[in-house]
Amino acid sequence: MNYRIPEKLNRNTRNLILEVAEKGRRIPGFISLAMGNPAEEAIPADLIRTCTAEVLEEDPIGLLQYGPMTGDANLMEWVKRRMVRDKGCAAEGNRVILLSGSGKGLSLMPRTLCQEGDEAYCDDFCFMNATANIRNVGAAAIGIPGDDQGMIPEALEERAKSGKGKYIYLIPNFHNPMGLTIPLQRRKDLYAVAAKYELMIYEDDPYGDIRFAGEPVPSFKSMDTDGRVVYAGSFSKSLSAGLRVGYLYVPDGLAGALSAVKTADGQEPLLNQRIVGRCLSKLDFNEYLKTVSRIYGHKCALMAETLRSCCSDRCRIMVPEGGMFIWVEMPSDVDMEAVNDAAVSAGVGVVPSAAFAVDEAKPGHAFRLNFSALPDEKLIRGAELFGEVTRKFCDS
Amino acid sequence: MNYRIPEKLNRNTRNLILEVAEKGRRIPGFISLAMGNPAEEAIPADLIRTCTAEVLEEDPIGLLQYGPMTGDANLMEWVKRRMVRDKGCAAEGNRVILLSGSGKGLSLMPRTLCQEGDEAYCDDFCFMNATANIRNVGAAAIGIPGDDQGMIPEALEERAKSGKGKYIYLIPNFHNPMGLTIPLQRRKDLYAVAAKYELMIYEDDPYGDIRFAGEPVPSFKSMDTDGRVVYAGSFSKSLSAGLRVGYLYVPDGLAGALSAVKTADGQEPLLNQRIVGRCLSKLDFNEYLKTVSRIYGHKCALMAETLRSCCSDRCRIMVPEGGMFIWVEMPSDVDMEAVNDAAVSAGVGVVPSAAFAVDEAKPGHAFRLNFSALPDEKLIRGAELFGEVTRKFCDS
Repeated sequence: MNYRIPEKLNRNTRNLILEVAEKGRRIPGFISLAMGNPAEEAIPADLIRTCTAEVLEEDPIGLLQYGPMTGDANLMEWVKRRMVRDKGCAAEGNRVILLSGSGKGLSLMPRTLCQEGDEAYCDDFCFMNATANIRNVGAAAIGIPGDDQGMIPEALEERAKSGKGKYIYLIPNFHNPMGLTIPLQRRKDLYAVAAKYELMIYEDDPYGDIRFAGEPVPSFKSMDTDGRVVYAGSFSKSLSAGLRVGYLYVPDGLAGALSAVKTADGQEPLLNQRIVGRCLSKLDFNEYLKTVSRIYGHKCALMAETLRSCCSDRCRIMVPEGGMFIWVEMPSDVDMEAVNDAAVSAGVGVVPSAAFAVDEAKPGHAFRLNFSALPDEKLIRGAELFGEVTRKFCDS
Repeated sequence: MNYRIPEKLNRNTRNLILEVAEKGRRIPGFISLAMGNPAEEAIPADLIRTCTAEVLEEDPIGLLQYGPMTGDANLMEWVKRRMVRDKGCAAEGNRVILLSGSGKGLSLMPRTLCQEGDEAYCDDFCFMNATANIRNVGAAAIGIPGDDQGMIPEALEERAKSGKGKYIYLIPNFHNPMGLTIPLQRRKDLYAVAAKYELMIYEDDPYGDIRFAGEPVPSFKSMDTDGRVVYAGSFSKSLSAGLRVGYLYVPDGLAGALSAVKTADGQEPLLNQRIVGRCLSKLDFNEYLKTVSRIYGHKCALMAETLRSCCSDRCRIMVPEGGMFIWVEMPSDVDMEAVNDAAVSAGVGVVPSAAFAVDEAKPGHAFRLNFSALPDEKLIRGAELFGEVTRKFCDS
């Protein structure tokens, strides 16, 4: 049978992260710095078990039956309070949409906003689920060059002149994969370009709660004076990735359309939202985040220190102020595939920038290393192994 | 800000079911036969609580961390075994895709298979999430006339001649909203038309496990000799709707594309799948389904009996062999909106066929009544009230 699958579907489905995992499986003692898993030490498993038992005891039928289409009202209120009190966003003119993982928003946005021929603008190295979803609706995901402060406003403007743009996709805090945080002035400049070309901004902030250095930067959403910004937040890094609970904070003018598209997908599991809500009711969340962030900060420092002492001096080690990833830029004359293969053979998995390249023809010269998933000694050993490989390729 | 939301998005977002619920809220003692909730008596809440505690105790980090992208391997195997042993489907050439509720498949299918300008064929009264998702990708949802045996093959063929068709959407068992079951010969005839015009068949079977009368009819999937059928199954009616666990059984040739689209949405909660899997491991599922089906059969009989004695003789009461809905056809000369308003005023909520009409210009002359959600005495009282309203409008 010929399925006649449309050409528009994202064809760039090669998953270099899984390929590394696959190769590593054959190597004894393989250390993977390739995944993006939160730190196990930071998962409050006992709290979650207690809360699960409590909510199921209190309202079993309410949780096991179909629930309200929009999800748990208390959690929606909690999120709204947090967006307003802790993140400086406007209460008026915005609404919370609960999602089964904030990543669901990556498809909800283009499914609602885009049609074939539209454009969406991303960092030239970008979380692949964001670009895949843009492509799956037949829109073009266009990589915009960046510098150490993130996407370059002038480069964005150049592309936005096409008039086909619908939105900009950004991860302003502790970018995946590059780790960088966009400074305030750059945020303002990007917002100005968005305003000039009537673009929405999708502010993906799954890591924003995990800051272990520097000072918080105001979100795009907090400077959103004209209903331009969709903010996506997550409990995956602070409480549990497995529960799949995230949210959008969206302008009223777009909320109806986003909700209608979401509603047609059916509802999300209320149990999971209620568990998260119960956990939050027992925590001083900001204090709790400090504890979680300390764990991440410790691991980041360990890896950064190891990389600085083990890597070739020709590598540029970009240490973030939060999140889960260190980005290591390689000299432009090294063969990235050879380095990647050598790392795997040496027993360590990292992710080449090609995995995140929006433009396949520009695979880049960097690696993403995760510091959150592994215990300290494996983390150090993995960084040492990677460092040795870089010295071999860069210093010979 | 002008969001420039594409014209293609489903505009038919008026939800008559919620409107009825809204009106009913103002009426004391209102009885809603409008919702599609499973019977509370059939939810094994204690079993689910036990299983939840067990799986969280055994593998807390495994469940609260990111898990395997495809979901719980044991549950996938369970589903595969069931499709092969109990539903007579081929083991070879097919794969299981776990979903957070089988309804997620309603968007996955058109997002994977359709582009703007394509057509998908539905019963002229059809579950609205199926048509909404077809429209949201810019494809046309086309209602095909049916009779008591379901979609009419000749009518399907007439439309399929356009050459734009991608798939047929069917609920072969205990249709929502019409309650009917497609007999074997009709299934064969529809399959033949699909084969002739290279159409896929999306066999949505959320109610199939809940049969309380008659004999099971072989599924389209069981007669799928050429990888044409995507089968969607659910645990929402057998175990719990709130946990949101369902699945697709799909031909290998389409599985890659469906999975790629799904993967870009991020993963589903493993906890919920593991809970369902643990419940299944403690049940003789076929015996268990008999118990659940008896509950539904009892409720259906109660409502059917009441309607037969209370409704106007000019109403045609279509009693199903399973599922959750009775379809009551009204004489074509009655004013459907007036009957609907009178029912609400009398204190009972039902859903007019217009809520399910694929073609808004053909709203139909029937009501959907749910018999699963309410306790017996409310069910009877609701049916009595509705019966009185029909007599008033049909027999005057």
